[in-house]
Amino acid sequence: MFKAEIKSETLKGLVNVISTLIDEVKFNITPEGVVLKAVDPAHVGMIELSMSPKAFESYSASNTEIGLDLDKVKTVLKLSTMGDIISIEQDEAKGRLVFKVGSVTRSMNLIETSNMNDPKVPQLSLSAKIGVLVDHLQKGIRAAEAISDHIALKADSESFELSCTGDTDDANLKLLKKDLESLDVPSPVCSMFPLDYFSNLIKAIPAGTLVKIELDSDYPVCIKFKLAGGEASAFYFLAPRIESD
Amino acid sequence: MFKAEIKSETLKGLVNVISTLIDEVKFNITPEGVVLKAVDPAHVGMIELSMSPKAFESYSASNTEIGLDLDKVKTVLKLSTMGDIISIEQDEAKGRLVFKVGSVTRSMNLIETSNMNDPKVPQLSLSAKIGVLVDHLQKGIRAAEAISDHIALKADSESFELSCTGDTDDANLKLLKKDLESLDVPSPVCSMFPLDYFSNLIKAIPAGTLVKIELDSDYPVCIKFKLAGGEASAFYFLAPRIESD
Amino acid sequence: MFKAEIKSETLKGLVNVISTLIDEVKFNITPEGVVLKAVDPAHVGMIELSMSPKAFESYSASNTEIGLDLDKVKTVLKLSTMGDIISIEQDEAKGRLVFKVGSVTRSMNLIETSNMNDPKVPQLSLSAKIGVLVDHLQKGIRAAEAISDHIALKADSESFELSCTGDTDDANLKLLKKDLESLDVPSPVCSMFPLDYFSNLIKAIPAGTLVKIELDSDYPVCIKFKLAGGEASAFYFLAPRIESD
Repeated sequence: MFKAEIKSETLKGLVNVISTLIDEVKFNITPEGVVLKAVDPAHVGMIELSMSPKAFESYSASNTEIGLDLDKVKTVLKLSTMGDIISIEQDEAKGRLVFKVGSVTRSMNLIETSNMNDPKVPQLSLSAKIGVLVDHLQKGIRAAEAISDHIALKADSESFELSCTGDTDDANLKLLKKDLESLDVPSPVCSMFPLDYFSNLIKAIPAGTLVKIELDSDYPVCIKFKLAGGEASAFYFLAPRIESD
Repeated sequence: MFKAEIKSETLKGLVNVISTLIDEVKFNITPEGVVLKAVDPAHVGMIELSMSPKAFESYSASNTEIGLDLDKVKTVLKLSTMGDIISIEQDEAKGRLVFKVGSVTRSMNLIETSNMNDPKVPQLSLSAKIGVLVDHLQKGIRAAEAISDHIALKADSESFELSCTGDTDDANLKLLKKDLESLDVPSPVCSMFPLDYFSNLIKAIPAGTLVKIELDSDYPVCIKFKLAGGEASAFYFLAPRIESD
Repeated sequence: MFKAEIKSETLKGLVNVISTLIDEVKFNITPEGVVLKAVDPAHVGMIELSMSPKAFESYSASNTEIGLDLDKVKTVLKLSTMGDIISIEQDEAKGRLVFKVGSVTRSMNLIETSNMNDPKVPQLSLSAKIGVLVDHLQKGIRAAEAISDHIALKADSESFELSCTGDTDDANLKLLKKDLESLDVPSPVCSMFPLDYFSNLIKAIPAGTLVKIELDSDYPVCIKFKLAGGEASAFYFLAPRIESD
């Protein structure tokens, strides 16, 4: 059983972030909240998203799983405007999820979840920790477009850098300690990541969001941030590109 | 002879509605006003539009017919902004219509009207009558997109419904008596219509317009509304889709 | 050596005008300012653009040449917003130009200029001189689109006209003395020009700019205007289309 109400803009924020990685997803629902764990088909990125019942305007659930096509949820979001409350209810008899916005009802078949396994979230201890407003990263990413397929993240005790090196052009965002919310880097680190995954995620995070980046040389990067006014936590892991000799 | 001035936004409102159905049209012009009757090439929709001389800022006409390509009139509308007055004058010697907006003159050949017959507007007595703000319908239509090619209009003594049923998804707009301007339904009615025609028309009607819908089971729907600040009346008929066994 | 700072909107205004004609350009740089002379590959249009050091927020240069791909400069402009200061510095060792906007650095290879010759700017004495706000011309051009490939510029002692004649449609912008900033036409003149070149240039000139047009029958038109708050001067020449019998 699942029945809840959520603000249009909160649902939109969550869907935007998840759909940078994957469209068909499984939500694990309990009375304590909603958890989603997903990897993309190429196994390059992984997301773990935990929503507290407080992320919702009202929330009532027993243990259940819901498989959804996020493209369809986006059509529901287009029917609502900021400030609208969207009500969501599982119709167990028909195997459907029913969304209501004002006088409009939109119901959709659920996706079969029996063969959707939860990925195992890696337990990593990454040495460099950077706190930064997503707005800075969004500028750096726009500069990197069309230069290379990869982006390097670098940090030392004084600065955090995004840089992209092409055959004829370079782009670089250098954020000094004063531009950052926090910087804890015991020794310099540098890793390369696929630009498209990193860029799509960063663009989907709402402006003004504090992002915590954990980094080590040639390890996955872990990008942590809150959504839904702090009531949803996202952990995003992205595999590094390790250059072979 | 035809010579008139009209507000840019009034002409735009009229053209937007007509061009949902057909691009090449004949206007029947008399000293008492302008009348257009047109069906689309597939004979699914029909419109009758009557403009009083009061829809215009100035109006002077003898009996004449004017055949126009509305795509070209749209290019004239793009040259004007809200509040502009567009002057229109028939150049009988050259067989042209001449539009003026400020310092710009745009003249276009008229279309031959001799083989454009006026369709016969059906005289129907439809039992269910609903008055509703077009804004509600516009929300319902957005919900229906991509679900099915058809939309059902249903009414009973308590509510008016738009609903769309697909293989895996449903969309539904249910308006209760309190959401409607008027509701006069002696017995429940339901008919199906092609979504694209209905949707294109409803989207073209300016927000805030009161729409009167007349409906009977498996009969055409009649959609009535005013444009041009109440000085133009539109009657739009749409053929039902009758399901064969 | 070249090192300068420029307002984002100033650089944008300059790049927009030049790139209507050509993308790969050579700037001739001296302590007295920057000059660009370019023709398009079809030799139909030519531009001469002179920027005073006062067009920049700061300016320091010795004699040098810089070859640039303006498409890449446009990507830098997208990283900045109105009010931003863009710093530009030549990296002679690497043969690059380095742009900085806030924390973002974007560097790009220079284009080889050795085989880019400066075109010879024609010395013409054209009899008709018209001063007009570009806003008027922008309206006239929108009216002309889709009617013909050519536009006629006409002037006499009372008016200046843009007109476009197609098989079935005409468009015309007639500006009377009162609509113009100045009008000095000793005898009537008329010439035809390719609409796309004329249209692209006029659209790229910022609204509110005073444009001086010099014209003679079957001669090139010379279009003069200022950019960068008056600190950059543009001369644009466009070859006429001379109708053969």
